[in-house]
Amino acid sequence: MSNPSARIAVAYHSGFGHTARQAEAVAAGAAAVPGAVAELVPLDELTDEVWERLGAADAIIFGAPTYMGSPSAVFKAFAEASVKVWAADLGWRDKIAAGFTNSKAMSGDKLNSLVDMAVFAAQHGMIWVGLDVYPGWAESTASIEDLNRLGSWLGAMAQSDADLSAEKAPPETDLRTAAALGARVATVTLRHQRGSLAA
Amino acid sequence: MSNPSARIAVAYHSGFGHTARQAEAVAAGAAAVPGAVAELVPLDELTDEVWERLGAADAIIFGAPTYMGSPSAVFKAFAEASVKVWAADLGWRDKIAAGFTNSKAMSGDKLNSLVDMAVFAAQHGMIWVGLDVYPGWAESTASIEDLNRLGSWLGAMAQSDADLSAEKAPPETDLRTAAALGARVATVTLRHQRGSLAA
Amino acid sequence: MSNPSARIAVAYHSGFGHTARQAEAVAAGAAAVPGAVAELVPLDELTDEVWERLGAADAIIFGAPTYMGSPSAVFKAFAEASVKVWAADLGWRDKIAAGFTNSKAMSGDKLNSLVDMAVFAAQHGMIWVGLDVYPGWAESTASIEDLNRLGSWLGAMAQSDADLSAEKAPPETDLRTAAALGARVATVTLRHQRGSLAA
Amino acid sequence: MSNPSARIAVAYHSGFGHTARQAEAVAAGAAAVPGAVAELVPLDELTDEVWERLGAADAIIFGAPTYMGSPSAVFKAFAEASVKVWAADLGWRDKIAAGFTNSKAMSGDKLNSLVDMAVFAAQHGMIWVGLDVYPGWAESTASIEDLNRLGSWLGAMAQSDADLSAEKAPPETDLRTAAALGARVATVTLRHQRGSLAA
Repeated sequence: MSNPSARIAVAYHSGFGHTARQAEAVAAGAAAVPGAVAELVPLDELTDEVWERLGAADAIIFGAPTYMGSPSAVFKAFAEASVKVWAADLGWRDKIAAGFTNSKAMSGDKLNSLVDMAVFAAQHGMIWVGLDVYPGWAESTASIEDLNRLGSWLGAMAQSDADLSAEKAPPETDLRTAAALGARVATVTLRHQRGSLAA
Repeated sequence: MSNPSARIAVAYHSGFGHTARQAEAVAAGAAAVPGAVAELVPLDELTDEVWERLGAADAIIFGAPTYMGSPSAVFKAFAEASVKVWAADLGWRDKIAAGFTNSKAMSGDKLNSLVDMAVFAAQHGMIWVGLDVYPGWAESTASIEDLNRLGSWLGAMAQSDADLSAEKAPPETDLRTAAALGARVATVTLRHQRGSLAA
Repeated sequence: MSNPSARIAVAYHSGFGHTARQAEAVAAGAAAVPGAVAELVPLDELTDEVWERLGAADAIIFGAPTYMGSPSAVFKAFAEASVKVWAADLGWRDKIAAGFTNSKAMSGDKLNSLVDMAVFAAQHGMIWVGLDVYPGWAESTASIEDLNRLGSWLGAMAQSDADLSAEKAPPETDLRTAAALGARVATVTLRHQRGSLAA
Repeated sequence: MSNPSARIAVAYHSGFGHTARQAEAVAAGAAAVPGAVAELVPLDELTDEVWERLGAADAIIFGAPTYMGSPSAVFKAFAEASVKVWAADLGWRDKIAAGFTNSKAMSGDKLNSLVDMAVFAAQHGMIWVGLDVYPGWAESTASIEDLNRLGSWLGAMAQSDADLSAEKAPPETDLRTAAALGARVATVTLRHQRGSLAA
């Protein structure tokens, strides 16, 4: 049996660049897994190419900033437009899905954004993969440098100080967490692809 | 002490008219409570007048169709733009808030939309009022005509058959449920206003 | 390569028997997929055998009635006790997970129970599979007999009239929907298992 | 018109004492508002007295640790048992409600617990009050000492390092945030009570 490959699309919106950096880290984490390729798919303009690239992907990792408690309006416009994929016999059925989000507060209703994304992916018949990493920064001897420092599992969270530009935030620790999500999605997708080929 | 009045704004988006009918029922239910006035505030265009009317309201009832698992993109664009109200010392602080949503399925992730709205209202420092009505249509002798036939409490739900125009859906039962939410919000808002006057 | 098998555990609590019937339908749906075996694991008593059977499973489908807006206390006690599995290097990591719930109302906050289960499974590092079935009973020509008549994708919902015993509720339509969830989980798990063997 | 009083009950469960400290801070914050009295109602044993005290309260603030993604099983057993209050014509209808939770991670699915509590309170016909405090600790010049350092509005969050006893965690900053929730609930409840008296 030939080795499968896994094509991972990171479909994201970023308002001020912070979530874009998180997206790049997710993609880098995915691409570092042998057999996986990753591509960034910005959602600012919903061109035909966007839909083609997402349609060709084996996994789609959704990302958006959390604004006023849920994913950004640009992301939501994308989710809404994806109804045409949904209507065509669940065009994304059985693709692997995951999610990430950034905001300025530590918790900051980011979980609500991840739930929104998971509920959205479930409507598409996708399979949801989260973060299999213990919470960091959760003991008196722990460090802000810990992986998964915010403690999130449904997807990856990042926190960016409101006064820092995207060059300086989110911190490296959150980018490593984003990369861990990308790597996990790639690994699970490859397993999934191998399983489909073997069938 | 003079009698207070309560000004109830129904801030809504409707894609095909079904949610607009639900909005009208909410407003009618509110307006039927002595001392309350209700107004419809469509969110399709976010003019200065929209923000002025919402700022002047004592209660805001949010409404949107559920599309792909969460409130419509038009609603989300409104929620996001409201950050300017949020940034001005929580301009909507202590207003009463509530929510409603329509979609074609019976359950259909509508609860996720209501949670999105409640989380959004909490960021604004608003006070959330739901539906204090037992579930209808939940016994073998019950009827689709029961109030709250879908069983929702965080807000009001309506269901519109996908092939019916807004003249025919949602059914009367869901419009009566919407009116019950409007009436409750008006009643609670009046109590709240009386309490503020008496302070 | 030899054919893999998939062991599907249906870990459930039932208060009055309705959710047990749903659990049986989920298990039957899973067992009907060639290569899959399914077993019912009631959670009323958390014996060593319960943990052994769940530990040996390739997929765990969680089920509980929705009581007062979330999964039953018996289910929650199980979820809480599973911390010992979680603490042992994420003992359920990479298992497939899914969920189902029953209550008397059509919508009835059942989605909140499914979100609770998905969030719980994500903490365990499990991979979440939902229902890839269009909403039924959502057009004027549609029928209560439609698959997925309540419109749920994160997991399977059933509705049981409050005055009917478990012999008479939930209706067949919801049991067929439960079976569809079981079948999908078995299919995805087999693919996942094949992929692991091929690695 | 005589001055009203507001009776605030803090109905909580604590596993290891950390949430109990948070509960005490909530109660102290409420009691510091002129006209309000606050009482702690532990939920470990659901005696008749528990139900009587909650029935006599004007507001109930719910609290529990977040275990495996949702409120503790002891809290859930309480929520489930409250069905008898629900069944008696919504015995808690129009009471003010709020919620708080503690866990070891910064975000840590605590929002899911607060959503569970808000959904639960909505079933009871209660009116939900959150935290009207901007997010702290969200700029490069900000401090862990900021009020609402975790950024939560649906209710109050606390974070306790896993290796610290309840004497040392949660930190003072989270206890001040808890007190702010208690104070806000007391203030809103007094307004609500004045409004009822004036009717």
